[in-house]
Amino acid sequence: MLDRTCVLTLSCPDRPGIVAAVSTLLFEAGCNILDAQQYDDIETGRFFMRVVFARLDGAQTQEAIAAGIEALAQRFAMTINLSEQSRKKRVLLLVSKFDHCLADLLYRWRIGELPMEITGIVSNHERAAIASTDIGDLPFHHLPVTRQSKMEQEAEIWRIVQESKTDLVVLARYMQILSDGLSAKLAGRCINIHHSFLPGFKGARPYHQAHERGVKLIGATAHYVTSDLDEGPIIEQDVERISHRDTPGDLVRKGRDIERRVLARAVSHHLEDRILLNGKKTVVFTD
Amino acid sequence: MLDRTCVLTLSCPDRPGIVAAVSTLLFEAGCNILDAQQYDDIETGRFFMRVVFARLDGAQTQEAIAAGIEALAQRFAMTINLSEQSRKKRVLLLVSKFDHCLADLLYRWRIGELPMEITGIVSNHERAAIASTDIGDLPFHHLPVTRQSKMEQEAEIWRIVQESKTDLVVLARYMQILSDGLSAKLAGRCINIHHSFLPGFKGARPYHQAHERGVKLIGATAHYVTSDLDEGPIIEQDVERISHRDTPGDLVRKGRDIERRVLARAVSHHLEDRILLNGKKTVVFTD
Amino acid sequence: MLDRTCVLTLSCPDRPGIVAAVSTLLFEAGCNILDAQQYDDIETGRFFMRVVFARLDGAQTQEAIAAGIEALAQRFAMTINLSEQSRKKRVLLLVSKFDHCLADLLYRWRIGELPMEITGIVSNHERAAIASTDIGDLPFHHLPVTRQSKMEQEAEIWRIVQESKTDLVVLARYMQILSDGLSAKLAGRCINIHHSFLPGFKGARPYHQAHERGVKLIGATAHYVTSDLDEGPIIEQDVERISHRDTPGDLVRKGRDIERRVLARAVSHHLEDRILLNGKKTVVFTD
Amino acid sequence: MLDRTCVLTLSCPDRPGIVAAVSTLLFEAGCNILDAQQYDDIETGRFFMRVVFARLDGAQTQEAIAAGIEALAQRFAMTINLSEQSRKKRVLLLVSKFDHCLADLLYRWRIGELPMEITGIVSNHERAAIASTDIGDLPFHHLPVTRQSKMEQEAEIWRIVQESKTDLVVLARYMQILSDGLSAKLAGRCINIHHSFLPGFKGARPYHQAHERGVKLIGATAHYVTSDLDEGPIIEQDVERISHRDTPGDLVRKGRDIERRVLARAVSHHLEDRILLNGKKTVVFTD
Repeated sequence: MLDRTCVLTLSCPDRPGIVAAVSTLLFEAGCNILDAQQYDDIETGRFFMRVVFARLDGAQTQEAIAAGIEALAQRFAMTINLSEQSRKKRVLLLVSKFDHCLADLLYRWRIGELPMEITGIVSNHERAAIASTDIGDLPFHHLPVTRQSKMEQEAEIWRIVQESKTDLVVLARYMQILSDGLSAKLAGRCINIHHSFLPGFKGARPYHQAHERGVKLIGATAHYVTSDLDEGPIIEQDVERISHRDTPGDLVRKGRDIERRVLARAVSHHLEDRILLNGKKTVVFTD
Repeated sequence: MLDRTCVLTLSCPDRPGIVAAVSTLLFEAGCNILDAQQYDDIETGRFFMRVVFARLDGAQTQEAIAAGIEALAQRFAMTINLSEQSRKKRVLLLVSKFDHCLADLLYRWRIGELPMEITGIVSNHERAAIASTDIGDLPFHHLPVTRQSKMEQEAEIWRIVQESKTDLVVLARYMQILSDGLSAKLAGRCINIHHSFLPGFKGARPYHQAHERGVKLIGATAHYVTSDLDEGPIIEQDVERISHRDTPGDLVRKGRDIERRVLARAVSHHLEDRILLNGKKTVVFTD
Repeated sequence: MLDRTCVLTLSCPDRPGIVAAVSTLLFEAGCNILDAQQYDDIETGRFFMRVVFARLDGAQTQEAIAAGIEALAQRFAMTINLSEQSRKKRVLLLVSKFDHCLADLLYRWRIGELPMEITGIVSNHERAAIASTDIGDLPFHHLPVTRQSKMEQEAEIWRIVQESKTDLVVLARYMQILSDGLSAKLAGRCINIHHSFLPGFKGARPYHQAHERGVKLIGATAHYVTSDLDEGPIIEQDVERISHRDTPGDLVRKGRDIERRVLARAVSHHLEDRILLNGKKTVVFTD
Repeated sequence: MLDRTCVLTLSCPDRPGIVAAVSTLLFEAGCNILDAQQYDDIETGRFFMRVVFARLDGAQTQEAIAAGIEALAQRFAMTINLSEQSRKKRVLLLVSKFDHCLADLLYRWRIGELPMEITGIVSNHERAAIASTDIGDLPFHHLPVTRQSKMEQEAEIWRIVQESKTDLVVLARYMQILSDGLSAKLAGRCINIHHSFLPGFKGARPYHQAHERGVKLIGATAHYVTSDLDEGPIIEQDVERISHRDTPGDLVRKGRDIERRVLARAVSHHLEDRILLNGKKTVVFTD
């Protein structure tokens, strides 16, 4: 029955009757709404909704339902996305030398916690750099990069994304900055983990910056990648308490735990179609 | 316009078409849904919903809308509650010697954070016991209690509840156990704050129990009062980290901060009709 | 016996023998060490220590002990501070229109949680601005300020500090920026609460900045005031989770709870001589 | 130089002069104190201390220092432990079917975060049960157990502990209850992770108990194993927020993250000699 469960996300200018229209359409198509969340952005007048529904026995076909939703989208000027829950999203993982986020995502994937197909792992370093992580049979692409070869390397990444039909790219502590061009191609489907509580400590070596400033909490931020470095829409953040005793090395160690859980949550939310873009911000319909 | 905003909460056996019926009714009555949250309890097959809606210009009268909702409730066997947001709930505060929760609730009320009318303060101790709190002109009822006089004292509390048209009773560190009879009369509208992370450390002197056991976090629990002591439906909980250095006195001090914020959140959720009872548990539709 | 308990804090260049010298001095003077904490800053080679000790029966006089400590300070080039625990620090509170931090500090003071003498309350607004807070008999100074009168107003604050023998000035949401001159006079004994998680969202209207950026946690920061706005040594920080649903008004409300508990902790640490300055950072010897 | 750093932990009846005696001994032996923490348990009159010191050039030999400490221990009736930081503790990991804690400990070990030698992995299930975890060349012992064979199985575990010179046994979600006999042999050096916030939800299926009760936070507890099930001295605890939407399966998933970080912290504290037993409680000298 799982293949009969769908997730519809939509956003449009707010006006009366949207919920009634959507729920009536689904009811008349023979579907049962399992979960629904909505949000009105009063500042912008934009309406956001996520509906999980199951096609009951005797329901209209998936195509007929999709057509009905399409008609609704036109009527209300909606941006929509319709996913079947049984179709797992295809994910490409980019990594450099630190593999704690990679190892964590792979573990969650192996035990079935993250419903995704991994299309491969790309690194600008050799396989040996992440030797402590078991990547099994996953395709590994070593794509070294220099300032001179960056354009070619990114073209190669893009080729892999396309050939592997990748839906989502995850920068799991990938220490290269994507060009504006690649960022634009991957808009809304490339998640980065930044090792600070943004907007504090943008840029390089944030734990050293944090140590220097003497903050009492450190954090991590998962966000969609945009051409504006460390300024993309924030998906998830978390922090942990530190003290004056912590050296930069201690912060790096404590930070690993924050980074991996923040990134895992952000990826999980994306895989379950819980995130809608709202300008430079996100609407995240969590449980 | 605030008087035109309403909150509808409902629960009923789950079946297809509920959301469509509710949203269509409201749309056709000339209302706009501002917020809606729902939850299917798969174990029990029960459906829960909270809808905030505004009557637009030209909408049906409040009475007509209420009648329409009533008809829907019959059709779907719904338990419903419909509140106008402009009508503040009337709250009676019960207290003993510790007044940190009382002081906190009063402050939040004074600055407009908690939308309620306070109908009075009841204490089993004299006014002097809470001398460090400014209660202004609020009616203060000193109702001392002994084992012999408990029945009469509770009858007096009940009389005050009725005469003052109190909607909600808050036990703000009221150190007396309500009888089964009074608990039953106040079912679903009497909130207690227990100074432990339930179900750990039920009963008396929980901070001393926690110190004795050597736990590393302490907490507080806000719950609806039932005849089963410390077993009522939990509304909200929180914790804070402690260490081996903390004496029972330190735990009492740290606990005050947890208690007052947990109780304030629970009261706020109740005042905004965010809590639905689900057997011995609660559904809390938070922001 | 409480008047016989002292707190010694010290910092000096690290070298072997400091702990032995301090503990032997106290032992030979007839004192028992109740608590001691130390920290070596490896980067700077500076050593920090806090020792709580009780003079036992037959101990040397307070003056003799102080003289011994003074001699030690010279030998090791120590910066020291010696306080008797029974002597409460004298605190002046500065406030503007928002009084949640003021009300919270006063409550904690009344129930004996914060061991301080309050020398007065200064506001740039009239008493009526904080009408919801009961300040009892505390001296209230209304010192309005304009760009033209700032120098005179700060001179008046300084006069009050001196005449009232104030040890610590607390800016409890005082919405004026202290001049470089006054900041310098109050160096290390003036605590401000900033309503953001520094270094994020410096300057004005941080909750609006946070809302604009779409962060998923908001915070507050207590720090010593320096002439460099929002750059003083951080004492304490905390955060709370928010969501896309929170309006700037919601952030202000949630922020109040964070601000008051962060400021109360910072003030408590200062009153108990737990904070040592380490350049632009703090060493905080918490429990 | 690392091999010249030692950690001394001690506890004894409190009396004046202990700190002076310890620090003077170390100073005169040519050592520099790098870190020191102490705690007086006022209730029991017992004193606890942890000292990290480095032998400087020209210091006494390790043996001479140990002899001096031994003499001190006799004089003050101290229970002491002296470890060289360069000697890694030897750890045996016990596991059943859930391997998230195992995988996490192995990863932290591989990247050098946990300074230990792993002497082997024992499971009551076959190697295949933890197939998603890469255990490399570590010795794997499959020791199935039934009620009838429990004595023999535990004898085998004990043999492995002795032959491998294991210092610490970690029950990384090992779903068997150790007998009183084995618990006694491993007193103070066997850490278990219980998947609830003790003392709430002792015994089996704590997440299902938590779901049934409707709590708003779930937690995990790392404790030393004693013959009294789930009553051993608590080392570390943590919690996470849940909601009415979470099924028991969701709690299991969220709980995995709490369990692995709580267990990792507890193991780390033990490896660094930060934990001292204080009757049925622990003193944990964290950073």
